[in-house]
Amino acid sequence: MTASTRGESMVVVMAPEATQENIDNVVGLVRSAGGEAFVSRGVSRTIIGLVGDVNDFDVLNLGSRNGVLQVMRVSAPYKLVSREHHPARSVIRVGGMPIGPDTLSVIAGPCAVETPEQTLAAARMAMDAGASLLRGGAFKPRTSPYSYQGLGEEGLKILADVRAETGLPVVTEVIDPGTVDMVASYADMLQIGARNMQNFALLQAVGRVGKPVLLKRGFSATIEEWLSAAEYIAQRGNLDIVLCERGIRTFETATRNTLDISAVPVVQRLSHLPVIIDPSHSGGRRDLVLPLTRAAIAVGADGVIIDVHPEPKAAQCDGDQALVASDIRGIADVVTILSPIMGRTPTMPAAGRIH
Amino acid sequence: MTASTRGESMVVVMAPEATQENIDNVVGLVRSAGGEAFVSRGVSRTIIGLVGDVNDFDVLNLGSRNGVLQVMRVSAPYKLVSREHHPARSVIRVGGMPIGPDTLSVIAGPCAVETPEQTLAAARMAMDAGASLLRGGAFKPRTSPYSYQGLGEEGLKILADVRAETGLPVVTEVIDPGTVDMVASYADMLQIGARNMQNFALLQAVGRVGKPVLLKRGFSATIEEWLSAAEYIAQRGNLDIVLCERGIRTFETATRNTLDISAVPVVQRLSHLPVIIDPSHSGGRRDLVLPLTRAAIAVGADGVIIDVHPEPKAAQCDGDQALVASDIRGIADVVTILSPIMGRTPTMPAAGRIH
Amino acid sequence: MTASTRGESMVVVMAPEATQENIDNVVGLVRSAGGEAFVSRGVSRTIIGLVGDVNDFDVLNLGSRNGVLQVMRVSAPYKLVSREHHPARSVIRVGGMPIGPDTLSVIAGPCAVETPEQTLAAARMAMDAGASLLRGGAFKPRTSPYSYQGLGEEGLKILADVRAETGLPVVTEVIDPGTVDMVASYADMLQIGARNMQNFALLQAVGRVGKPVLLKRGFSATIEEWLSAAEYIAQRGNLDIVLCERGIRTFETATRNTLDISAVPVVQRLSHLPVIIDPSHSGGRRDLVLPLTRAAIAVGADGVIIDVHPEPKAAQCDGDQALVASDIRGIADVVTILSPIMGRTPTMPAAGRIH
Amino acid sequence: MTASTRGESMVVVMAPEATQENIDNVVGLVRSAGGEAFVSRGVSRTIIGLVGDVNDFDVLNLGSRNGVLQVMRVSAPYKLVSREHHPARSVIRVGGMPIGPDTLSVIAGPCAVETPEQTLAAARMAMDAGASLLRGGAFKPRTSPYSYQGLGEEGLKILADVRAETGLPVVTEVIDPGTVDMVASYADMLQIGARNMQNFALLQAVGRVGKPVLLKRGFSATIEEWLSAAEYIAQRGNLDIVLCERGIRTFETATRNTLDISAVPVVQRLSHLPVIIDPSHSGGRRDLVLPLTRAAIAVGADGVIIDVHPEPKAAQCDGDQALVASDIRGIADVVTILSPIMGRTPTMPAAGRIH
Repeated sequence: MTASTRGESMVVVMAPEATQENIDNVVGLVRSAGGEAFVSRGVSRTIIGLVGDVNDFDVLNLGSRNGVLQVMRVSAPYKLVSREHHPARSVIRVGGMPIGPDTLSVIAGPCAVETPEQTLAAARMAMDAGASLLRGGAFKPRTSPYSYQGLGEEGLKILADVRAETGLPVVTEVIDPGTVDMVASYADMLQIGARNMQNFALLQAVGRVGKPVLLKRGFSATIEEWLSAAEYIAQRGNLDIVLCERGIRTFETATRNTLDISAVPVVQRLSHLPVIIDPSHSGGRRDLVLPLTRAAIAVGADGVIIDVHPEPKAAQCDGDQALVASDIRGIADVVTILSPIMGRTPTMPAAGRIH
Repeated sequence: MTASTRGESMVVVMAPEATQENIDNVVGLVRSAGGEAFVSRGVSRTIIGLVGDVNDFDVLNLGSRNGVLQVMRVSAPYKLVSREHHPARSVIRVGGMPIGPDTLSVIAGPCAVETPEQTLAAARMAMDAGASLLRGGAFKPRTSPYSYQGLGEEGLKILADVRAETGLPVVTEVIDPGTVDMVASYADMLQIGARNMQNFALLQAVGRVGKPVLLKRGFSATIEEWLSAAEYIAQRGNLDIVLCERGIRTFETATRNTLDISAVPVVQRLSHLPVIIDPSHSGGRRDLVLPLTRAAIAVGADGVIIDVHPEPKAAQCDGDQALVASDIRGIADVVTILSPIMGRTPTMPAAGRIH
Repeated sequence: MTASTRGESMVVVMAPEATQENIDNVVGLVRSAGGEAFVSRGVSRTIIGLVGDVNDFDVLNLGSRNGVLQVMRVSAPYKLVSREHHPARSVIRVGGMPIGPDTLSVIAGPCAVETPEQTLAAARMAMDAGASLLRGGAFKPRTSPYSYQGLGEEGLKILADVRAETGLPVVTEVIDPGTVDMVASYADMLQIGARNMQNFALLQAVGRVGKPVLLKRGFSATIEEWLSAAEYIAQRGNLDIVLCERGIRTFETATRNTLDISAVPVVQRLSHLPVIIDPSHSGGRRDLVLPLTRAAIAVGADGVIIDVHPEPKAAQCDGDQALVASDIRGIADVVTILSPIMGRTPTMPAAGRIH
Repeated sequence: MTASTRGESMVVVMAPEATQENIDNVVGLVRSAGGEAFVSRGVSRTIIGLVGDVNDFDVLNLGSRNGVLQVMRVSAPYKLVSREHHPARSVIRVGGMPIGPDTLSVIAGPCAVETPEQTLAAARMAMDAGASLLRGGAFKPRTSPYSYQGLGEEGLKILADVRAETGLPVVTEVIDPGTVDMVASYADMLQIGARNMQNFALLQAVGRVGKPVLLKRGFSATIEEWLSAAEYIAQRGNLDIVLCERGIRTFETATRNTLDISAVPVVQRLSHLPVIIDPSHSGGRRDLVLPLTRAAIAVGADGVIIDVHPEPKAAQCDGDQALVASDIRGIADVVTILSPIMGRTPTMPAAGRIH
């Protein structure tokens, strides 16, 4: 038997109308040929990953079986997120707001949800900055267990209340497969943080949930590993993924991380998924947020995600990088001026929402 | 309120005989002072982490309350794993086998459990190499979802059978908080892999289980982050932790990772926990395993963990680095010759076990 | 005696009209106080660096001595290039062309000068791209001694001929202190390449020559080391320095280097020197040059330096990243559109020059 | 014409008895075939590097021409230092002392030569540590121009005096092609420091001098780049090169650099040149020198180079890492105990020298 890890593998994409019998049939055929079949049921489609000798599977004529939409050989570590067979760049909708090639999305909010007042004030700052989505963390993965860990479900309720008041859909982080469903019941988009980019149990869990995912790049992940992580989500049937470059770890200490701005055009060539930049966490410095936002838009990113805080000095986390009220106008102006040059329209919150 | 993230925090260690009432009392006092208290119940003791203004807590005289063993201010990101207040280096016992300052432990086995035959053959190779513990992965976190993912619980059963036959206690990886209890029911030691080093939900889950933990260093984690990750486990009451250096990510491509051999003496100065080296995953090359094992013992590591495989070319993962039968004698010789020079005794499998 | 390396040192800046006697007097005073004095004579001024106990020098009242312009304590590793005492950002003139805060400079040309025809063709491409300066290497530092090493002085003559024909001032690399004067006799600006950023003998040699210097960042140099390297040039009396970010070495292999775009605002805050970006060498890919040029301008760089080649497939070096004729319009358009948004005027070649 | 940079090149090694006419003949043939020939005259042999289309050179039958010893195609960036055609590992002699596969060499001394007394005291410490060679810097490449730069030629005289007194051959750094001959007139071995590893003018200069060279690895150089740098020296006719691993730059800040101990076996497989380790500069911490020395010997290094200082607190550079008198015994013991285990004999200073 050939080690599948070093050669090709194969993916069977089932049609939306495929029955359980169709699926069982494929699995049975693969096993009869000495292989193994992993069934991944997503919201809209089911994918079967084959492990074994790809040549043995060829003779099964899987592509002509009932309920089979497509059979793909996979020599790259990712396929479903690749642009190779999907040349059009995707648009992902979050609470109705598009993220993709024709728009420029600003996601903004506090690093951590601390109180209803702080979150509402930050959401208003976000709207002033031109944000169409609200970010805010209720579960905070922190280097030390003695640092602030977030409000948990209480924080999610605050976010839902602020959404009700402002109309901004909510992006928030998940850190445990066991709480993904609970978080998804409050959130419009689930964020996978940099430290969890290769937490495959978590990736698979969000892949099974019908909510779009914001996948941050691990701070020492290669672009290939990042796209492979996205493939874990896609393989479970969820292709509503937005990638987020947030800086990589290098020897340079003047910035918290080194923003790998080249990753944007590199990823856009390899994958059809939207990619945005986090100028707040990459630099780790408030004074860098505006220039890095300009660079992000000019390089061709589909959006930015920015920390804002009404009172950064009292922030429970990452106060050094949060924008304050006087910085907000700069972000809004940059988005307004640079978007049309890049052939994009800034994504605006739905009309009629009170500010 | 001062942001606790940038200053000190406080940890209350409860006595083993502390009652729920004692714990509730501490929590109540902290809340009355405007702070927050996180209760972590471990197997042998309960720890309460305080968030808020440390000066406000001082006046509570927590150290003199019923059931309180110790109150510690924490300015470093880790405390329980620090050597500062625990100068003696710890000995961790795994299925009766010691890992610590006076012994030299070899952990060996296949990267992935594939079949009963392959696992048993690898276990015999491990014993020939002088191993006192058997490693083997049933859950494999892989970069691509199309790579071999492991046998799951079936693999754990194989490991348990091989333990029954050889007497070697079993070290195996956990990747999901939801399956930690199940894995712990088979394993003697739970491994946290490099990609999950900052999967805090997983760290906390293994902290709550009464089994020792092998914590691999993330491939781009600083030593401080690594010890902070160990602190997450310790904070839940489990101090039976062995650290494992397995190479860090650098620009050099001649080796899979760059073994940071200096990490061993650096960690031994900062922490009382044992630290071992993985010469297989750091180099990623079979020809480097023996020289790096020699270097590991000579630098002062408390042990090594080595990949062996009866037939590496057919291995489902990492075959390039697995030792084969003809390499085994070299490992055993090196351990025998270098251990006494380092003032250590090789840890041997319990007498009477059949080989 | 205190180790000067770990504390402060002191720099005496002599007035332009200072005599040799004035200088000797300062040196004598320092030595009488047990210190050591290093005299650096530049084109326009002489600087004396003091080594020893700074407190011993305080009592010498050096600031009031004849011919002394200023006495500075240096606790940072650089002082003359720092913005601390020189808040206005500098404008450097190269063959009459300004590089600085109000302009946007494009430097373009072939990586290596190969033939007169190729160089002239590349210079015309450079002009079409909006370049005010011509780059081209006659001495090529290459990883392998078997790679093309450049034409040497013959290449410099070609560059001078092309300058005569096009009016474009010439930027070219120096690699040996022994040939700095010769290269300077042909060039308008001397380039120090990334591999030589800490070749201190070379830095001092270009510091003694009355030509502006383009100092590329070493591919694993911190920003502090880069500014300290610039200080070596400045200390010899030459403050006409332009810094060039060209990517740093990281684990990512999708790009040749990782462009550290954040370095631009970071450096502009620390130093008064202009800073430009090299989008060609950082990415190492032709398809990245245009997006990275947009990002460079948007982040606030004072210019870009770009590889162009009339026939990249035949290029002796770095053909993969050279722009071809069809790419040129894109660069010119981007400069025209983005410069005014950044409050800058594109630097244009002198009028009347034939194209 | 094919770009030689991306394909093969060719090297003609002339016999020791080859005449100028023989050389001119080869050059003429190459040029007649449309190629370029670079003649490198070394002490013992002359090498001609060919640039152009290798296939065009094949028909010239260069191997059968008068005075030609060997013609080699070079597809790797290095050839003369490769082990491919030179399977036996080389022994390099420095002032009569061997460095190579059968011996274990300790090189020790002060980071910087400061005074005759300090240098002599450090040399005596070096002898106590078992050193066969004395290291000491007279020219110090320092990050900041305001740090101590070394005594220059005065320092070399001190080293020569100490050699006369102790019998220890001297290893010292060169930093400028213009002073290589002068430094070589004092030194037994010329050191190229990490920052100058790709200072090709300097490499070529030491290649032309009849003294062995200690080539430190650049702190962000790949192993391939390091061996290519050695090839620059070899190409000029000097194959007396010892490689020195001294730590690479990574994200980890607990140590000054990260010792890449795996580089030793990797290099020994690729190259016939000896390779030693610098445990002082890699860790940057005195407490790491002894464990890293043990690891260096155990991994198979051909020697170590260590900083010692009679009074580290007063050291002009790198005092934090210098060993003091009480550490010396540990080094000597380790060398004595571990060398025979590795099949090596410690290299001892010539008998009869007074201590």
